[in-house]
Amino acid sequence: MLLPTMFESLEADYHHLKRHVQLWDVACQRQVSLHGADALRLVQLLCPRDMSAMALDQCYYMPMVNRRGKMLNDPVVVRLAADHFWISVADGDFWQYACGVADALDLDVAVEEPDVSPLAVQGPRAEDLMVRLFGDSARDIGFFRHRRLSFEGHRFLIARSGYSRQGGFEIYVDDSAWAMPLWEAFFAAGEDLHLRAGCPNMIERIEGGLLSFGSDMTSAHTPFEAGLGRYCTSRADFIGKAALRAAAAPRQMIRPLAIEGRIPPCDRPWPLLAAGGAGGVVGQVSSAAWSPDFRTNVALAMVAHSHWHAGTKLEVETHDGMRWATIQARFWL
Amino acid sequence: MLLPTMFESLEADYHHLKRHVQLWDVACQRQVSLHGADALRLVQLLCPRDMSAMALDQCYYMPMVNRRGKMLNDPVVVRLAADHFWISVADGDFWQYACGVADALDLDVAVEEPDVSPLAVQGPRAEDLMVRLFGDSARDIGFFRHRRLSFEGHRFLIARSGYSRQGGFEIYVDDSAWAMPLWEAFFAAGEDLHLRAGCPNMIERIEGGLLSFGSDMTSAHTPFEAGLGRYCTSRADFIGKAALRAAAAPRQMIRPLAIEGRIPPCDRPWPLLAAGGAGGVVGQVSSAAWSPDFRTNVALAMVAHSHWHAGTKLEVETHDGMRWATIQARFWL
Repeated sequence: MLLPTMFESLEADYHHLKRHVQLWDVACQRQVSLHGADALRLVQLLCPRDMSAMALDQCYYMPMVNRRGKMLNDPVVVRLAADHFWISVADGDFWQYACGVADALDLDVAVEEPDVSPLAVQGPRAEDLMVRLFGDSARDIGFFRHRRLSFEGHRFLIARSGYSRQGGFEIYVDDSAWAMPLWEAFFAAGEDLHLRAGCPNMIERIEGGLLSFGSDMTSAHTPFEAGLGRYCTSRADFIGKAALRAAAAPRQMIRPLAIEGRIPPCDRPWPLLAAGGAGGVVGQVSSAAWSPDFRTNVALAMVAHSHWHAGTKLEVETHDGMRWATIQARFWL
Repeated sequence: MLLPTMFESLEADYHHLKRHVQLWDVACQRQVSLHGADALRLVQLLCPRDMSAMALDQCYYMPMVNRRGKMLNDPVVVRLAADHFWISVADGDFWQYACGVADALDLDVAVEEPDVSPLAVQGPRAEDLMVRLFGDSARDIGFFRHRRLSFEGHRFLIARSGYSRQGGFEIYVDDSAWAMPLWEAFFAAGEDLHLRAGCPNMIERIEGGLLSFGSDMTSAHTPFEAGLGRYCTSRADFIGKAALRAAAAPRQMIRPLAIEGRIPPCDRPWPLLAAGGAGGVVGQVSSAAWSPDFRTNVALAMVAHSHWHAGTKLEVETHDGMRWATIQARFWL
């Protein structure tokens, strides 16, 4: 599965996303469908987050770990019914893992990858655009809630969610035949809103602290190291529970970092050094880009406990030389 | 992962493979390593074949099924030690499934994908070529047995196996840095043996009845339908055991089929019809090609019980018209 990383340029896409509205083909977010009497039990097994209070119209961000407490994926799960969930996977595969768990425990649940391709509508004008296709009810969808709304007689599951901080929706296109009619209807309706095709924008997601599984955090990290400890509160049995209990006080964590000066594209991890080279390597930068709005290089870094406090001055070893950097108290958005 | 399907042409590659020796880069056969006290238990859970008598220098063809008794993959498993196996996967993924099973049951086993890339040496002169790099001991490796043999000081695991009926070996290159030195040493040593780069050959594998997972049989089929019932004899607990017991008398099965006349490339499934159109569709052809040695079109087809007996005359609906065909008693090799 492929996902574009930019259309015009990172900065042009960024300005457009923060001002107008974009349509993103995020079909790569494949759905793993869990359906059956044991679906809730399986979701709970697969997730350190407490799922017991999840409403039937709710979506949850759902970090998942393996038995060793290491990140497996960080999907969004959508609850369709008491016994039916769609897990919208992030960068990586997950279907077979869920099949293996269900088969090993002989759970009463069908684990399948249905023909569902999410289409994201993102940006401050997303709601105005959605109303034109789906009617005023689109405005009533709460954050991380979903509804079924009709377009030309077909009822689509639509959630207020998406991989940006600009607001927007994800339409779960549950039949490939609807993809192009929907796409074309959006463009027919959105011209005065400056609608464009787009994709997750690296600058905007770093500003907003939206992590990328596979780069900012990987299968080498615990959710605590990824700053996702608040999602690890389930009292139910889940895979990795014992390992997570032992990992709750991490020695490194993802932190927002501002980097000074001009930087090259961050196409490889950059070592993070204690200022003056005194303490050697204390972490690494996984994502970085110039932010036009915040007039600094915004970055995400995995930083050792000794150096992760806000205001700590560090040095980044880019592949184009050393740069000064400062740990931030919070993300920019 | 990609695998070539031909180099010069299907027929030129075929003649070369049956006469000389070829080197195949089959790195796509990724290894799933199971290592630990519960490794044997996990292998047995994952496989309907009885693993209890497997020797420490043995390889097994190992059809795998899910809980519903449907094919998951058909790898070859290599036993490295009492508590260590490599599963050499066929077309498809399998690592995450094994991780899911191990995590769900909290088995004491590490499930990993090591840096191991099989390199196949196939053809009637394979042994003569192997001896030049690895010494006379290569001749002593029995069929589906393995040994560690040295090349320039590195001990490689070498098995007498491979996806052809011409004889040969698979070298498990357990460090990418060795791949090119090995490849170049083979070509330096094999010129007078007419060594060429190659790949599994569709004509040769159909003649020999070597099935292709994902086309001849898929996750829709049981091993009994794939003609692999003789591997489903384990008395141990394994995933899908109950489902397989209920599937032991299949109503369709893969059969060798000879097709008359000229046929186009079989790039899609062809319906198989009862002769004269009397009984409607009775199966489908999944692989077919002209065999220069047997002077007929050799084919594999999934055929209904009513029409699978040797000698049964059928009609194939190719995308270039109808052809007569006859069920064969056995494969051609």
